Amino acid sequence: MKPDIFPFLITLDLEGVFTPEIWINVAERTGLPELRLTTRDEPDYDKLMRYRIGILAAHGITLADIQEVIAGMGVLPGAREFLDWLRSLAPVVILSDTFYEFAAPLMAQLGRPTLFCNMLEVDERGMITGYRLRIRDGKREAVQALKALNFRIIAAGDSYNDTTMLAAADHGILFRPPQNVIDEFPQFPVTHEYDELKAIINGLLK
Amino acid sequence: MKPDIFPFLITLDLEGVFTPEIWINVAERTGLPELRLTTRDEPDYDKLMRYRIGILAAHGITLADIQEVIAGMGVLPGAREFLDWLRSLAPVVILSDTFYEFAAPLMAQLGRPTLFCNMLEVDERGMITGYRLRIRDGKREAVQALKALNFRIIAAGDSYNDTTMLAAADHGILFRPPQNVIDEFPQFPVTHEYDELKAIINGLLK
Repeated sequence: MKPDIFPFLITLDLEGVFTPEIWINVAERTGLPELRLTTRDEPDYDKLMRYRIGILAAHGITLADIQEVIAGMGVLPGAREFLDWLRSLAPVVILSDTFYEFAAPLMAQLGRPTLFCNMLEVDERGMITGYRLRIRDGKREAVQALKALNFRIIAAGDSYNDTTMLAAADHGILFRPPQNVIDEFPQFPVTHEYDELKAIINGLLK
Repeated sequence: MKPDIFPFLITLDLEGVFTPEIWINVAERTGLPELRLTTRDEPDYDKLMRYRIGILAAHGITLADIQEVIAGMGVLPGAREFLDWLRSLAPVVILSDTFYEFAAPLMAQLGRPTLFCNMLEVDERGMITGYRLRIRDGKREAVQALKALNFRIIAAGDSYNDTTMLAAADHGILFRPPQNVIDEFPQFPVTHEYDELKAIINGLLK
């Protein structure tokens, strides 16, 4: 752990912490339940993404269509206020496995925090044709890079794929995690409301 | 240079790009011209900072006093609008050698972008007693760390101490630089207005 002469920097997951789960909402709002499939159903992420892209193509759904759906789903109640509070106290970076093209409408609603995520490939008709992962295990890699810049990292996230980020941070906090994550990672404090997360972060920043 | 499958991330200096020079304004507004001294006058940064801290102590000037001065000096005309535009297009990180305690009022005026800088040491009376540099050559180190996370970096700054950051980036751009920096670093395009910077960044993001 870094000595307390170094500033804090706070990294947070996006979906489940500030916004609803994007694919699940896209599935519901487009009426295409096949898009609900997650890595729990298909653990091979590349297979899953190619499957999703295939479904979108088959139904002629463009990136602009999905962006409209995402803009309409909005951010979680209290998310903007919590994030504004956080950004008044420390630098914040949101770490997500989603894509800039999807996150854009949500970022606007959150006051444009800094987001590290990935890019889609889109053709001239606006159809999604592919995607690029910027880096493997991007959340953990980002935390390690920021620690190497001598920041003390507080990280919060909700799901299994956040746990390597939480473990890499100086302080990892779970926010609204599923029970299996709580059970498997008893080392991380569990929070359910922004006020609980605020209280823990406030205690660390003191 | 990274292939174009990777997302852009934009790093910018703070003082001279978005805000006036902090120490020069503090000197003017406190009526203490000794505080105008910069690294051009005293190249040993640690000596310079200890000298500044000594002057503040001698005049009983607290951190809160300086923060009030800084809040009053405000950001540069058009800075907020330019930054809002930029943040709608790409993730942005501001890299500065200043201190979070000084920058706080300016960050609020800029819409709370993510800032990597340094911390002051402040005693219980609110007097500045010291400072900590987070890391040596912090701007360049940050650019290298972000490149290692597979971002393509566009960097902009105004002064000599930005040139290592500009050189480390995929694309370095000077903004309102002094003539000696223009002469010594002909490899970087020179801009004077936000619209010129916008035009270059727009060209790169295409």
